[in-house]
Amino acid sequence: MADTPDYRFHAELPVRFRDTDVGGHVHHSQALIYVEEARWAYWDEVAGRRGIESVDYILAEAQLRYRKRILYPGRVRVGVRVVSVGRTHFEMEYEIRDPEGALLVDARTVQVMYDYDSGRSVRVPDDLRRRLERHEGRELPRRRE
Amino acid sequence: MADTPDYRFHAELPVRFRDTDVGGHVHHSQALIYVEEARWAYWDEVAGRRGIESVDYILAEAQLRYRKRILYPGRVRVGVRVVSVGRTHFEMEYEIRDPEGALLVDARTVQVMYDYDSGRSVRVPDDLRRRLERHEGRELPRRRE
Amino acid sequence: MADTPDYRFHAELPVRFRDTDVGGHVHHSQALIYVEEARWAYWDEVAGRRGIESVDYILAEAQLRYRKRILYPGRVRVGVRVVSVGRTHFEMEYEIRDPEGALLVDARTVQVMYDYDSGRSVRVPDDLRRRLERHEGRELPRRRE
Amino acid sequence: MADTPDYRFHAELPVRFRDTDVGGHVHHSQALIYVEEARWAYWDEVAGRRGIESVDYILAEAQLRYRKRILYPGRVRVGVRVVSVGRTHFEMEYEIRDPEGALLVDARTVQVMYDYDSGRSVRVPDDLRRRLERHEGRELPRRRE
Repeated sequence: MADTPDYRFHAELPVRFRDTDVGGHVHHSQALIYVEEARWAYWDEVAGRRGIESVDYILAEAQLRYRKRILYPGRVRVGVRVVSVGRTHFEMEYEIRDPEGALLVDARTVQVMYDYDSGRSVRVPDDLRRRLERHEGRELPRRRE
Repeated sequence: MADTPDYRFHAELPVRFRDTDVGGHVHHSQALIYVEEARWAYWDEVAGRRGIESVDYILAEAQLRYRKRILYPGRVRVGVRVVSVGRTHFEMEYEIRDPEGALLVDARTVQVMYDYDSGRSVRVPDDLRRRLERHEGRELPRRRE
Repeated sequence: MADTPDYRFHAELPVRFRDTDVGGHVHHSQALIYVEEARWAYWDEVAGRRGIESVDYILAEAQLRYRKRILYPGRVRVGVRVVSVGRTHFEMEYEIRDPEGALLVDARTVQVMYDYDSGRSVRVPDDLRRRLERHEGRELPRRRE
Repeated sequence: MADTPDYRFHAELPVRFRDTDVGGHVHHSQALIYVEEARWAYWDEVAGRRGIESVDYILAEAQLRYRKRILYPGRVRVGVRVVSVGRTHFEMEYEIRDPEGALLVDARTVQVMYDYDSGRSVRVPDDLRRRLERHEGRELPRRRE
């Protein structure tokens, strides 16, 4: 996953004891939670959609590669970027790193723009594409290159 | 993901209220938990490895496709199969369905055989491969076909 | 907590691997989840309130006593009863036992009847009190005796 | 719960989206997680016991009073104090507040000093009592006054 320009957005969060399982390292499902926190922060800041009520997409796919164990206590730093924007969907990539910069997990998700009232997928609004492109500093392809 | 022979192993489990989030449907990260419960049951029954102490692999990759929302209250039925066995890793596939058989999520994980004492990956034991092939009813390729 | 008449309602549920933490026993916060699943089942069957939309109370207090560790894999059986019904609140008690009947956790919660639209506590409806008393087989005091 | 001298130790943590349930407020079981994070931080700093391996107690009781909803996104600030130290157990109290200082949850837990190797409760070491008293700035009674 990667020779796209680098991550311009990061969120940092503390690992919790409850995130761990036997062995004292973080349970693999928690990587989706860390990635989600980072996506909320990105969506708030970059897409300008604030709060739970303004979520306008649903998750269609997720993919994770586990590189190194995540330990407690500790903090993780999650890089987030949008790598493609299609007609109704968009793709994001993530890197979870420890404070020293070691790669712990990388991940990718696909989201579909969704109208919760009608229960249907909808087009990615033009202004959203522009905001995302302005932040990422490049034209975003329809599919991951 | 699939024209391999069908799922011969299933685990069924109840959805919990705590699995849901805003909207009353199950949070996407819970699919990894459902899949994990089914993998434990498979590993117990098919691989003959019982209990937490006898886990001999680590998770290297996970991939999920969300098809339909999972609702509370309800039950899910998870199909599990091994689709390939390499030198040190093996691949599994999963289908999460509702009691009427509708596909909710499909998933794939890659595991690496691991010796927790030495902290190293190890070869898939021959007897494990044989047990898996006996259960799946076919020779298992080195990579997903 | 207890020389009230015995538990007439039980819910049984499987422990999940993700419920455990370091040491392979269930994390203490999960007892609230087990108790909640049992409360949902009771509320559905005894109070006749089905589904997430029909919840008409909020949790005001919870109290837990941990007696023995809960292990994975395994199942728990949760006894639930209403022990008092006040003007706007009601109290419940719970016992979490293993399949052999050993007591693992006992718990107590206080709920307040709540109207989500107006955002206010409301009176316990007479028909609800009657349903609860019919099930419990006795008049329910205003406060835990 | 409260006319003991004030809280001298606080831990602050971000609420996560996954902590919420239907309605967008934090699930009641998460209060135990917030309280636990604060207890780990206290135990590290005040008791001088660092890391998962050095935990030397088990949880025997927990009690929670829910005052106000906890919302996402947001942060909580958790006050922690030890209020009594018996022969083998000690009691802690907690306040979860929002950044403006509004009380959201108060809680109390009882811990028993425990030797994981022998599987038995053990005496509270004298040096631990001294450390706790030095931090709390007073002699700690055998039972909550």
